[in-house]
Amino acid sequence: MKIIGEKINGTRKRVAQAIAERDAEFIKDLAQKQAAAGSSWLDVNAGTLPDREPDDLIWLIENIQSVVETPISLDSANPKALQIAIKAVKKTPMINSISGESERLANILPIVAEHGCPVIALAMDEKKIPETAEKRFEVITRIIKESRALGIPDSNLYFDPLAMTISTNTESAMIAFGVMRRVREEYPEAHLTIGLSNISFGLPARSFVNRYFLSLAIQAGLDSAILDPLDREIQAAILATELVLGRDNYCMNYIRASRKGLFDKPE
Amino acid sequence: MKIIGEKINGTRKRVAQAIAERDAEFIKDLAQKQAAAGSSWLDVNAGTLPDREPDDLIWLIENIQSVVETPISLDSANPKALQIAIKAVKKTPMINSISGESERLANILPIVAEHGCPVIALAMDEKKIPETAEKRFEVITRIIKESRALGIPDSNLYFDPLAMTISTNTESAMIAFGVMRRVREEYPEAHLTIGLSNISFGLPARSFVNRYFLSLAIQAGLDSAILDPLDREIQAAILATELVLGRDNYCMNYIRASRKGLFDKPE
Repeated sequence: MKIIGEKINGTRKRVAQAIAERDAEFIKDLAQKQAAAGSSWLDVNAGTLPDREPDDLIWLIENIQSVVETPISLDSANPKALQIAIKAVKKTPMINSISGESERLANILPIVAEHGCPVIALAMDEKKIPETAEKRFEVITRIIKESRALGIPDSNLYFDPLAMTISTNTESAMIAFGVMRRVREEYPEAHLTIGLSNISFGLPARSFVNRYFLSLAIQAGLDSAILDPLDREIQAAILATELVLGRDNYCMNYIRASRKGLFDKPE
Repeated sequence: MKIIGEKINGTRKRVAQAIAERDAEFIKDLAQKQAAAGSSWLDVNAGTLPDREPDDLIWLIENIQSVVETPISLDSANPKALQIAIKAVKKTPMINSISGESERLANILPIVAEHGCPVIALAMDEKKIPETAEKRFEVITRIIKESRALGIPDSNLYFDPLAMTISTNTESAMIAFGVMRRVREEYPEAHLTIGLSNISFGLPARSFVNRYFLSLAIQAGLDSAILDPLDREIQAAILATELVLGRDNYCMNYIRASRKGLFDKPE
């Protein structure tokens, strides 16, 4: 299970403030904590207007890279910002994200191909998020055809089946799981990822929904997720799920996490 | 998800004491709390030697029935105790349990057939617990043939695939899930149940293993379990899992439980 640490995101108020005030220590601290918690990538979203975005992204990247080796996930819809940022990163970054939207594919897929980046691909097109698993899978098939045509290996694609909140559609998670199972069957080299926060929007006790959704999604084939790696309950969910699914040899990851106090009640 | 409340079990020290001292209030309290927590059956195990067992079982049943309407699950390997207890219960009891063991089948299956009882059937025979899902499923097939021959409907059978501890075999849960998926496919009218405490034996932070095992088992087809209905984390696991799996219309069970404080941190 590969974790994309979500915390350096300028749409969060405290991060926006740190960006505006050039508070480098705050960003470095978030980077170090998320890296220590086992992130495979650190998502970086400047969350600023297009004219400011390249500068802010570069500032974030330089500060993050001054303290950790973890590769960066460039979270931007702006091809110009991506082109500039991609020159500033030391390691091949992940791109977050493309979708079946023609313009985005045309603009961003060549960057992905040229730099050999892993890329998050959302199962939606310009019109909207399709309602059924079948229609979302069709979008994925279209993306995979276009990416193969550019020589992008399936293993660089991280498909996000999109889990909308259960509060407005109780089938939301089941639709996402349906997409996941199809991708696992048809494109076994491709990866699956998910943003963990939407599923519980508008519900009480969201943390419980998020952690059991994550566990059940792993059983449905999820092998990566965009989440808060500092959330102990989420880390416990991942460790317990991998243990139960027979993926933790000699139970060593689970036992080691227990010794470090992960499962203890926090103060 | 039907819960078989496990707490009235004479192999637990405090319950054994209550039985020995005829402490009726203690037993009644356990019965009322488990019934209020949504148990579909209350498991009753006298945990005493064969000569004392019928008397102790009757005493337990009478006290339980004096305070709750919930049917009883008679947890005994002793056909004589079962025959006597079955006359003392007001509602058709569940029988816990039979297995593929010939003598147990021959002794207990006719009681099950005569009284129309639901029965827990363990996926093991006289020799031992088979190591593979395939062999356990063969035992289940043998039990279902014998029970059908006596006119027992598949819907009265609750198969327990047996989840041994992950600490000695990291495939334990996956084997149990394999059995569950086969039963769901081949015998769709039959039910699945599980004793929740074995899976984590010998591991640290057992509660996390239990609750994610339960959640993943529900996704694999589990529709009943023998567990502690007073464990808030387990109840939260069931509610969140059923919500995520699209089985909670308008999210009402989840929202109602939240309003009652189930997801709050206990004092």
